[in-house]
Amino acid sequence: MSVITLLTDFGNRDEYVGLMKGVILSINPAVTIVDITHAIDSQDILQAAYAIHSACRYFPAGSVHLIVVDPGVGTGRSLLALEIKNQFFVAPDNGVLTLLFGEDDETRLVRLSNADYFLDTVSRTFHGRDIIAPVGAHISQGTDLLLLGDAISPAEAVWLKNIGAQRADTGEITGTIVTVDHFGNLISDIHHQMLAQIEQFAAENQAIIRIGSHVIRGICRTYADVRPNKALGLIGSRGYLEIAVNKGNAARKLNVGKGDTVQVKI
Amino acid sequence: MSVITLLTDFGNRDEYVGLMKGVILSINPAVTIVDITHAIDSQDILQAAYAIHSACRYFPAGSVHLIVVDPGVGTGRSLLALEIKNQFFVAPDNGVLTLLFGEDDETRLVRLSNADYFLDTVSRTFHGRDIIAPVGAHISQGTDLLLLGDAISPAEAVWLKNIGAQRADTGEITGTIVTVDHFGNLISDIHHQMLAQIEQFAAENQAIIRIGSHVIRGICRTYADVRPNKALGLIGSRGYLEIAVNKGNAARKLNVGKGDTVQVKI
Amino acid sequence: MSVITLLTDFGNRDEYVGLMKGVILSINPAVTIVDITHAIDSQDILQAAYAIHSACRYFPAGSVHLIVVDPGVGTGRSLLALEIKNQFFVAPDNGVLTLLFGEDDETRLVRLSNADYFLDTVSRTFHGRDIIAPVGAHISQGTDLLLLGDAISPAEAVWLKNIGAQRADTGEITGTIVTVDHFGNLISDIHHQMLAQIEQFAAENQAIIRIGSHVIRGICRTYADVRPNKALGLIGSRGYLEIAVNKGNAARKLNVGKGDTVQVKI
Repeated sequence: MSVITLLTDFGNRDEYVGLMKGVILSINPAVTIVDITHAIDSQDILQAAYAIHSACRYFPAGSVHLIVVDPGVGTGRSLLALEIKNQFFVAPDNGVLTLLFGEDDETRLVRLSNADYFLDTVSRTFHGRDIIAPVGAHISQGTDLLLLGDAISPAEAVWLKNIGAQRADTGEITGTIVTVDHFGNLISDIHHQMLAQIEQFAAENQAIIRIGSHVIRGICRTYADVRPNKALGLIGSRGYLEIAVNKGNAARKLNVGKGDTVQVKI
Repeated sequence: MSVITLLTDFGNRDEYVGLMKGVILSINPAVTIVDITHAIDSQDILQAAYAIHSACRYFPAGSVHLIVVDPGVGTGRSLLALEIKNQFFVAPDNGVLTLLFGEDDETRLVRLSNADYFLDTVSRTFHGRDIIAPVGAHISQGTDLLLLGDAISPAEAVWLKNIGAQRADTGEITGTIVTVDHFGNLISDIHHQMLAQIEQFAAENQAIIRIGSHVIRGICRTYADVRPNKALGLIGSRGYLEIAVNKGNAARKLNVGKGDTVQVKI
Repeated sequence: MSVITLLTDFGNRDEYVGLMKGVILSINPAVTIVDITHAIDSQDILQAAYAIHSACRYFPAGSVHLIVVDPGVGTGRSLLALEIKNQFFVAPDNGVLTLLFGEDDETRLVRLSNADYFLDTVSRTFHGRDIIAPVGAHISQGTDLLLLGDAISPAEAVWLKNIGAQRADTGEITGTIVTVDHFGNLISDIHHQMLAQIEQFAAENQAIIRIGSHVIRGICRTYADVRPNKALGLIGSRGYLEIAVNKGNAARKLNVGKGDTVQVKI
């Protein structure tokens, strides 16, 4: 009983996700399929990169993660299969795997080329259904990656550039809001390890967070550490700095959104 | 092959639901997971209470229902596991189980405390993933509730107050709209048993329903009992009085919404 | 391990889909349930007819497809079970199966009447839960269609009228947009076989597509065949003519929607 997950920008309106599941179950009827999300903002590779990187660690060993955020479908862009720490990923070669590359020395990476593992007919507009789904189903059955195409090194794949928060020599950290969640929480790309010093209990109230035209002092432990309707910074469940409003919607209250800058200094 | 259901206010945008499923499948790979809904209005415990109470009876014996509508996450509120009529529930102790308490003398209720059944690391903001999901997975594998924490009586748990429709001495029933569904149907908290007299065939056309500024006469059997675009009252599929518009949207046409009052008299 | 799919206009807000799954799993705990979509426009039988017809071919042999787009629930309309090419369908007799009828000489069609296969209590407003779900679960376990009711011929069922694109004597094809997808792509009812001549490489640039107040020349192979933000026609993943905008939203840019006409001529 293995697991295949799906992460796409398809939304929940159309039959596209269902078709991928039909293709998968036609090859591996015993697999369990889990939707991680289909609400990645249209063609937002960066947002998808953070989502899959954060999510994959919660799935069983041997899980196969299919990522279809694919603005280049039908162009010359290739498709990849990646194995890392006994998790598998199938995705377009467009940078969506950037945060996973190099996490482990044992990474195996293949550029898909063996059409024996694709659907018989491959459309020019829906490789999620015609290539990624069947390849993922075969991997979930134990097909070795090397049967799917030629091994390459991560350096040969496309990487997202200028990804991740930066720390200046002054110690100031500058990051970006990569996702606004359902509750209006603003999730940044500032990993809690970058804030390790600041997180120390003594220093906690000395951190100054700037976002939009707002200044927030301190890093809290949970939403209820501040009064209702008041903004706070905390390490969210993803492990990144998150700006929230207790019992409220931070995106609306602070008028901040995806792509906006967040700065932290002591 | 057991079933775990999920009922949350997480929406369908984020990876949060998917993470809970990953945690569950890491513990019990053979379970079948069903989404009841993730569109409970944000932090609306009352709405969630009616939804789970109505839904659970349609699931197989032994099903485990996980409810994550949890405005108090990170505060001192505790978490509960409940067994009733061979159905299991794991939820915050915030009243969301009120309608289930006392349905049966054999109710077993436990306040969760045994961290052996939680994830190794428990965040302060996402107990759905870190506690409710793993505890639910263990219950689905047959773990006895008494291993999870200390037994308490339902009276020791948090109950929602002033819940449910009221019948006056005059016989008039006053209820509340607790949910507006996808079709705009207005679902009340007036259970069909409260209307038993009125439902009798002879009395049916004598019922008078007041909602907003509207008066509706009689209780119908189905939408098509009235002309298209006309409002009606009927016993909806949940078993509660529902105000609908045949081939239309009652919420929009009547300008009525969640929290509004509905009155019935003969 | 068999598959049951669900295609409804229920949306993703309410517990209705979850209840159907609970009923199915109570009868057949080993089935895998797949959501094709729950976002069919409310009561749009035509849209549902195209969606299920396009989707079903991607599912394993023996799959059971449940379709609940049912404006006539509670009226005298009956319910059908259909077997065709080793795929099964359960749906209201309202025309939603029109595109499947007659696809194969071996079609078997039954009008449901045997309440032994329904839930014990059948509501007047939710036959998806009370009839379609349990009947589908029984079919997935191998129950023969003839046990469910009386066999009828497709001619005795309700058909959608005037369905499908038309080719004039002049060769001009007139179709309709039946669905606007999540990306704003406009999906028509002009099947690629109707365009076979036009599709020929030599003739490709000679096709003229008229939609709204716009004229598009040629039929492309993929979105990236035109510049970003430019409209194009292509054969979409469903196999029908689709009007799209490369890296954009055709419905918004062209101000065209469901029900609008699209014409193609050479």
